Amino acid sequence: MAKKVVVLGGGTGTFAVLSGLKKYPLDITAIVTMADSGGSARKERDEFGMLPVSDVRKALLALSPEDGDGGFLRDLFNYRFSEGVGVEGTTFGNLFLVALSNVLGSQEKAIEEAARILQIKGRVLPVAMEETNLVAEYDEGITVVGEHGIDEPRHDGRLAIRRVYLLPQVPANPKAIAAIKEADAIIIGPGDLYTSLLPTLLVGGVSEAVRDSKSSKFFILNLMSRYGQTHGFTASRHASVLEEHLQSPLTHILVNTAELPLEILQYYATSEKSFPIENDLPEDRYELVTGDFLSGRTFRPDPSDKLKRSLLRHDPEKLAKALVEILEN
Amino acid sequence: MAKKVVVLGGGTGTFAVLSGLKKYPLDITAIVTMADSGGSARKERDEFGMLPVSDVRKALLALSPEDGDGGFLRDLFNYRFSEGVGVEGTTFGNLFLVALSNVLGSQEKAIEEAARILQIKGRVLPVAMEETNLVAEYDEGITVVGEHGIDEPRHDGRLAIRRVYLLPQVPANPKAIAAIKEADAIIIGPGDLYTSLLPTLLVGGVSEAVRDSKSSKFFILNLMSRYGQTHGFTASRHASVLEEHLQSPLTHILVNTAELPLEILQYYATSEKSFPIENDLPEDRYELVTGDFLSGRTFRPDPSDKLKRSLLRHDPEKLAKALVEILEN
Repeated sequence: MAKKVVVLGGGTGTFAVLSGLKKYPLDITAIVTMADSGGSARKERDEFGMLPVSDVRKALLALSPEDGDGGFLRDLFNYRFSEGVGVEGTTFGNLFLVALSNVLGSQEKAIEEAARILQIKGRVLPVAMEETNLVAEYDEGITVVGEHGIDEPRHDGRLAIRRVYLLPQVPANPKAIAAIKEADAIIIGPGDLYTSLLPTLLVGGVSEAVRDSKSSKFFILNLMSRYGQTHGFTASRHASVLEEHLQSPLTHILVNTAELPLEILQYYATSEKSFPIENDLPEDRYELVTGDFLSGRTFRPDPSDKLKRSLLRHDPEKLAKALVEILEN
Repeated sequence: MAKKVVVLGGGTGTFAVLSGLKKYPLDITAIVTMADSGGSARKERDEFGMLPVSDVRKALLALSPEDGDGGFLRDLFNYRFSEGVGVEGTTFGNLFLVALSNVLGSQEKAIEEAARILQIKGRVLPVAMEETNLVAEYDEGITVVGEHGIDEPRHDGRLAIRRVYLLPQVPANPKAIAAIKEADAIIIGPGDLYTSLLPTLLVGGVSEAVRDSKSSKFFILNLMSRYGQTHGFTASRHASVLEEHLQSPLTHILVNTAELPLEILQYYATSEKSFPIENDLPEDRYELVTGDFLSGRTFRPDPSDKLKRSLLRHDPEKLAKALVEILEN
């Protein structure tokens, strides 16, 4: 029987994990955040009254085969309109999911059909079927609503987030809960702690299901801190924020130990106020998996893309290899 | 060998012909106009710098199977966004063709891939690969550029069009010319004489290819005159305008003889200034094919659609049956 792996989250880190894992004989379920109000996701919500579909689209693409007939479909799904008032900056795959949801009368069916067309390996499940917003409360009494406002803070980004919650609180997609309960392994991260990882765990019933599941619980530590979210956080503070929300301990933590290129570190420090995360994890508490998990590719920002994207990323193949070695033992 | 049938034009009439013919074992090529500047086609041209794709989309749908897996793809292609600033009123299939053209770097390849995805019967060829505009010169020295301005005239719509031409003149798609030359039958209409039928025939090389082809040349007469284009035109005036542009005679003309519903005639007369076309065709000059070609369905305008659409239409099955009977003899 193929091992059942659930990947929780959203953002580029989660998609690196999915892209790597799809090449192994695993039963993969991606459970993606539905509280994304950044960039074009915010636009879709405002204009279509739809759940945000960007993370769904990216998860579908991460799990789709990279060769064969699907090749141009992947490019098409990722195509971002560069001209045209109104659609400028909108990704074709998002419009596809919006149109298909309306045609089929259900976002769930639309995701299933898109999965079929893209011939994906595994499943993609939205963590919730209802719209919600992420709210963050900071020190000094500041409250921010929406992922976008947390990602690009107007306040002092060194302020720590005291509490995050969903408004309104929404129940989890029952299929997502079932997948978590049956999982052999649950993988969280890498990804922005407060805007990609916690929004999934905060959905009603998810943290309880993770807690009650007998699976291994993996956390893949981010490479860099994020100004406005995790400024000054060490590795163990990342882990303890997650464990507090999960009400249960993580079992495995993957930490990259390959050196980060100095030039890129300087760019991050000056333009993003972002720094490498200090590894202070106690060796007796977790299975610590260290190694070179760094992608050799250099990522450049897409000029038509108004969101900030990671320049330093995890390598899908290296991560998947390390994860599968543990899963097989 | 399946008979080679070329259908020339654009608009709802041509699509009725294609929808009916696809059910017979014929080798069908739809050659569609590329000078459509009405409604969302105009928007695509203005915003994407693309050839107008609405007629391509409609021809693809007309030739796609109506049952099986393709069912929801047809609905998706026809889906018109009803919300969303910018995409409101835009048809999904048009955005699909625009995105796919950009991804594949060629509109021709995009049409081929869309044809494959929709599993169409036959082929759809744009009549030209370059952008052009339809220009109409009326009596009293009025000149109008663009199909839209001809369809919804600001001048006295009873004025006759003296001359139409393309600006710039563009050469035909060589594949379209080849298909015309090899055709056993060429079918023109039904459709707006000046804005759907002639724009195809005016493309450089098309009328010469039709003239030189040994095929039968069918014209399916419209049901109603069109204010601003063919106000007061009899059937023979329609035919002679076509023959003048083709520089060759038509061989067969199909004329509906079923009675038009009085209520709809009254609507057309008052709101569209549109009237039934008098049949004054000489019986010795054409194979006249008369009969009930009228659709029993009543068509209502789509409120999200800013273009005028025909309420009275030809019936795809009745037209196809009559055409195939002639082709088989």
